Amino acid sequence: MQLQDIIPDKGRLFLNNEVPEVYKTDYSYQKVAKVHAVARPNTTEEVMGLVKFANEEALPIIARGSGTGVAGSQVPINGGELIIDVQNMNRILELDEETMTLTVEPGVQLNEIQTFVESKGYFYPPDPGSKNSTIGGNIATNAGGMRAVKYGTTRDYVRELEVVLPDGEKVTLGSLNIKSSSGYDLKNLFIGSEGTLGITTKIKLKVLPLPKFKKSVLLAFQSLKDATNGVLTILQNSIEPTALELFERSTIEYSERFTNIALQSQKGDAYLLMTIDSNEEETISRKLDIVKSILTNQALEIIPLLTQEEEEKAWFLRDNILVALMQFTEFEMLDEVVPINKFAEMINYTKELQEKHGLKVINFGHAGDGNIHTVLMKEDLDDVTWQTKRKALLDDLYDKVAELGGLPSAEHGIGIIKKGYLEKMRHPVELDLMRKIKNAIDPNNLLNRGKIF
Amino acid sequence: MQLQDIIPDKGRLFLNNEVPEVYKTDYSYQKVAKVHAVARPNTTEEVMGLVKFANEEALPIIARGSGTGVAGSQVPINGGELIIDVQNMNRILELDEETMTLTVEPGVQLNEIQTFVESKGYFYPPDPGSKNSTIGGNIATNAGGMRAVKYGTTRDYVRELEVVLPDGEKVTLGSLNIKSSSGYDLKNLFIGSEGTLGITTKIKLKVLPLPKFKKSVLLAFQSLKDATNGVLTILQNSIEPTALELFERSTIEYSERFTNIALQSQKGDAYLLMTIDSNEEETISRKLDIVKSILTNQALEIIPLLTQEEEEKAWFLRDNILVALMQFTEFEMLDEVVPINKFAEMINYTKELQEKHGLKVINFGHAGDGNIHTVLMKEDLDDVTWQTKRKALLDDLYDKVAELGGLPSAEHGIGIIKKGYLEKMRHPVELDLMRKIKNAIDPNNLLNRGKIF
Repeated sequence: MQLQDIIPDKGRLFLNNEVPEVYKTDYSYQKVAKVHAVARPNTTEEVMGLVKFANEEALPIIARGSGTGVAGSQVPINGGELIIDVQNMNRILELDEETMTLTVEPGVQLNEIQTFVESKGYFYPPDPGSKNSTIGGNIATNAGGMRAVKYGTTRDYVRELEVVLPDGEKVTLGSLNIKSSSGYDLKNLFIGSEGTLGITTKIKLKVLPLPKFKKSVLLAFQSLKDATNGVLTILQNSIEPTALELFERSTIEYSERFTNIALQSQKGDAYLLMTIDSNEEETISRKLDIVKSILTNQALEIIPLLTQEEEEKAWFLRDNILVALMQFTEFEMLDEVVPINKFAEMINYTKELQEKHGLKVINFGHAGDGNIHTVLMKEDLDDVTWQTKRKALLDDLYDKVAELGGLPSAEHGIGIIKKGYLEKMRHPVELDLMRKIKNAIDPNNLLNRGKIF
Repeated sequence: MQLQDIIPDKGRLFLNNEVPEVYKTDYSYQKVAKVHAVARPNTTEEVMGLVKFANEEALPIIARGSGTGVAGSQVPINGGELIIDVQNMNRILELDEETMTLTVEPGVQLNEIQTFVESKGYFYPPDPGSKNSTIGGNIATNAGGMRAVKYGTTRDYVRELEVVLPDGEKVTLGSLNIKSSSGYDLKNLFIGSEGTLGITTKIKLKVLPLPKFKKSVLLAFQSLKDATNGVLTILQNSIEPTALELFERSTIEYSERFTNIALQSQKGDAYLLMTIDSNEEETISRKLDIVKSILTNQALEIIPLLTQEEEEKAWFLRDNILVALMQFTEFEMLDEVVPINKFAEMINYTKELQEKHGLKVINFGHAGDGNIHTVLMKEDLDDVTWQTKRKALLDDLYDKVAELGGLPSAEHGIGIIKKGYLEKMRHPVELDLMRKIKNAIDPNNLLNRGKIF
């Protein structure tokens, strides 16, 4: 058996030196080893054939979507990998309005899912920043994003998964049943396992009715501390925001420079951008009134974004932070998470680290759910200084995350770049359980070897 | 080492023939084997000591709460069991209003949790029928109950679990962080595993703000078919009921006889009892108006339960169905679940089976989430006829559940009584995965041996 027997078309198989450079990295800038082959299956059966082939040849396997990962999960680090690129499996198969589920293949991109269901009056809440990430990748990392504060993460919207296991057999996990007490919850075990337990080949997603109304509001604060206090005030007053994003002036400036658009407020050091949705317009008005009354003393200005154009402008700036940063400097973006009552302490501590280590640190993040994107900026530093300062700062930062009961990754995954920090933060007994499960399901350690732990 | 060294007090340890009869069964009426000992630990450390002792002596272990299980999960079937009764670990430890979490020990009963948090203005949504079941048991079965249609099941309210593993070590799974992409989701694996992977010793539960308003309404229908059609109409019109219960006249009659209270409607063959909650009174009024307008032709009568007394009366009758049944006949209560669009077909099929097998079948259930409690009634049948008819009817019934994409248990668990049906309904590859995980975590098969599979 040869790979050509499984993937007969030339454009869907690349061997050894033919492997395009793009497959050797992702957004995490990791160095890579030599790849055996890249295959682009069209069907579950082809994925099964590829995995069986890899078993015969003892090739490590990496499943890959559109390569937008930022933790190195998709990067070949062992040498001799078979990369299975699922981007050809990109069909939206069925919207079942009776069970409110959407069946898709793993290579469908998030923005395609959102656009499709919204055109039918439905809503897929998970909203990670990378709109061109694939749903397969979203499941591998339990991707979160902007709307997790109200609606939860990818995990909460997966009803059923078809998965190809490390031995090449396929299995369906979960079901369309809303309740289950019928054996172990394997579906949730596979979600967030970063491709180390199986390759997702088909997904049934839960969708919701599209909320009839939504409105956004921009709040400017004198200081980062004032903004984090504002977050607590909002959460304690039953506003139930759909999204509650925080960013510093020094962060949004990159986006303003890149897009040549000015944010509606230029005052203060930090901002909250909040959306509220509801099926009743009055509920939104009432909640906006509450926000105004409870924050009028804390905020420098409160700007309701009344038109769709104004709303889209603010969110466009927020969505472009990452792309903008890429234009101006090398950087490392984190995605630490802490319990919500520790959010202010954590984010303010990053500014202490900026002083202590002499490394520019900016923040943005999902304030409503305790997930911060702290960004370390290389700027003009030479490589050695950057690596030294970076490492020292990260050690301090993750010590604080651990002290506050947090986790190294809220939504990007551990991959290779956070392995050491996961190891330091979680109890050895828990890590040992994870390894036992990995070994039970993938005894030859073929799937995404060397990732997570 | 002896058990007396771990549990020194006389009233907390029962050996061999001293073991009280109550420990040899649960509500599932299963036969039992001889028990080695029953221990009632007060602390996690005592649980760890007991499990280590069981390892040394190769004793199978069963963790037990208040014994309200109905699937035989708590029944000793192997002989020589060490039963660990956690009912002494019954303290509510902390309500943390900042993270909106409640820390409890596993032996706390559901009604104690509900009463406690409601007195503080909070809400613990899972609401299984057995209010005196323990939270440890609720976690073991991923208990569901009345409010799952809007709020989900126990799984959705567990933030963190302290678990004693089969080797006697303890581990904390999950965290107070709202998002995580930091390794495998072990917390969800342990929830619903019916005591086969570990013993829960401490739990952090998520609580919600108590909704400010709620109202119930009783709807009477000519036939079971009309009532199931009513369910679909309600779900398709964005009513978002907190609870949507269905019961037949022939079911509620047992409760009426037992409590000597008459339901507010005596018309028709089937009823829906629905609650709507909201923070805004107008939202409830508006939704009740919609219900009236969309169901006015389908329902025989629509009775809003305007006073607290009227509301409690209807729910009291609903809550007492199971206890009432116990007074009048031997019976077997199922908890099958099907995708919501198959609910009508499934429940109506049970009436076909009543005719086919000549065995009285009544139904009640959580109509909003596809979970039916079909009850087979022994009545005057002799034991042999009952067992023969019962078995034949169950085979037909579960074949239909499988055909409709359902599961044998929505909320009670597989235990011992549904093992055969789980085996028939799920793919061998999935069951094999479950066994691999069980074997990896509990290689000596000490914890709840012979349950689930």
